Amino acid sequence: MYKILVTGATGFVGRHVLPQLIKSGAEIHAVAREMPEQALSISWHAFDLLDQTQRVRLICDVRPDTLVHLAWDTTPGHFWSSLSNLDWAAATLDLVRHSAERGVSRIVGVGTCAEYDPADQECDEYQTPIAPTSLYGSTKDACRRAVQACAEASGISWAWARLFYPIGIDEKETRLIPSLAAALISGCSAQLSSGAAVRDFIDVRDAGEAIAELALSQVIGPVNIGTGRPTSVRQIAELLGRIVGRPDLIEIGALPDRAGEPHYLVARINRLVDEVGFRPHRQIEETLTDIVTSHRIARPRAS
Amino acid sequence: MYKILVTGATGFVGRHVLPQLIKSGAEIHAVAREMPEQALSISWHAFDLLDQTQRVRLICDVRPDTLVHLAWDTTPGHFWSSLSNLDWAAATLDLVRHSAERGVSRIVGVGTCAEYDPADQECDEYQTPIAPTSLYGSTKDACRRAVQACAEASGISWAWARLFYPIGIDEKETRLIPSLAAALISGCSAQLSSGAAVRDFIDVRDAGEAIAELALSQVIGPVNIGTGRPTSVRQIAELLGRIVGRPDLIEIGALPDRAGEPHYLVARINRLVDEVGFRPHRQIEETLTDIVTSHRIARPRAS
Repeated sequence: MYKILVTGATGFVGRHVLPQLIKSGAEIHAVAREMPEQALSISWHAFDLLDQTQRVRLICDVRPDTLVHLAWDTTPGHFWSSLSNLDWAAATLDLVRHSAERGVSRIVGVGTCAEYDPADQECDEYQTPIAPTSLYGSTKDACRRAVQACAEASGISWAWARLFYPIGIDEKETRLIPSLAAALISGCSAQLSSGAAVRDFIDVRDAGEAIAELALSQVIGPVNIGTGRPTSVRQIAELLGRIVGRPDLIEIGALPDRAGEPHYLVARINRLVDEVGFRPHRQIEETLTDIVTSHRIARPRAS
Repeated sequence: MYKILVTGATGFVGRHVLPQLIKSGAEIHAVAREMPEQALSISWHAFDLLDQTQRVRLICDVRPDTLVHLAWDTTPGHFWSSLSNLDWAAATLDLVRHSAERGVSRIVGVGTCAEYDPADQECDEYQTPIAPTSLYGSTKDACRRAVQACAEASGISWAWARLFYPIGIDEKETRLIPSLAAALISGCSAQLSSGAAVRDFIDVRDAGEAIAELALSQVIGPVNIGTGRPTSVRQIAELLGRIVGRPDLIEIGALPDRAGEPHYLVARINRLVDEVGFRPHRQIEETLTDIVTSHRIARPRAS
């Protein structure tokens, strides 16, 4: 039976990759440091991917036909410049190497829009220059280059999911949207910069499904995972204010803009739509409403 | 005392890096899987750099101020497309990560002219496009990107020695020049392609000294390690024929040219000469004469 191995399967994005892969009828293997409670129809493997010996054992045990590699350090406020990016880059290369050696036929890695040098227009997989400015973006880019070269030298099919801004419930609380939602629900003021930065926010369920469809396809190369729709941070805040019913708490311009942040970072999604055959369908209002609802269940308003 | 750690120190190039570093007065540490017999004024460490645990122990034991990282798989006929390139890339990132964490102040990696997309003109570190076509070139390039990003994020000084074609005694026997020399000395015909490919051959002693000077300098970024002098493979063969005294044995055009090989791969060495302050001084005739002499000592002519 065709075997797909998913790393980072318990992560924010990874957990939304699994259902679509299961539907494909393949035998799904997933790796996590600790086994999750709900197991679905998945063979779970408890391994630490940052341990060389455990990585090799994982690949020898599973011998996957397709490797879908999502695992990476994404600790908020930390991952952009953390040395752990090098740990994950090294682990990625090693994982790919052992998969290649043991007969993998397709490798799908997950990259980032931070690999691009955005210039106020949609990022295109082949036209937009690659010029990461963070350690995170640089190590992801370095991995893509090595994975591509390894795949091409070994006759392995490969793809690279360049993920834009996944949002949804269960996002870590210190991230922008959960922290805004939490403030508004608690009746606290939500202080913002100018909010002028425009981003491509994608519902994490759509992102997971897109990555799964990419893995199941035979599409080669980098593929943007986004919606193609530009939304400013200010719009996000105003939508959240309206959904919570407290637009008065939004304080636009209360904080300074962060230096060096790109103004516009939005995906061109022609490859995803036309080649992979997947179009993200959730509207941002739906995603934000779900986030607010989940926060209200977690901590009901004192009233 | 200032500590310099050299990996690959027993290799073809690495052994010629050591003397210049020793002269600098720094405390030199070198790593090798097996201890060499002649030890110079060096602290040798017996570690396998492809083992994660041993890498960490090495860095913890030595805590280098400068890391000069030459170790890589360079098995002739194998290294261009071997999966071991991924092992060495992963080991490199991990080594750099632990060095950065433990206070290294300068990292010098060794890359290759195979990172460039040469277009019949001298390769310039910043002007020539980077477009490796081999797994070897791609993984070296990926390492450079990750090392640069790590160094920049951590405030560490870094350089990347882009090595052209080192030649000299002790080069592995299956490589072009040793095999030509061996054939001519044995009185066998030396069959060649058109020999039209033009390369930048550098005496390995000069290459080692150049890398040492780069390591001791504060020069940042990629630096070509070559002579800037173009020499065709045909010229090399003819010189060898003349030095051995058997020009009649050279058969130019007896073999087909290899497809996909760049025609012209020569370094622009302004950074090495002007910024590092080092100019390779050995002429190719001298290098080839030394090679022939060493072969004659190793296997005297039956006469």
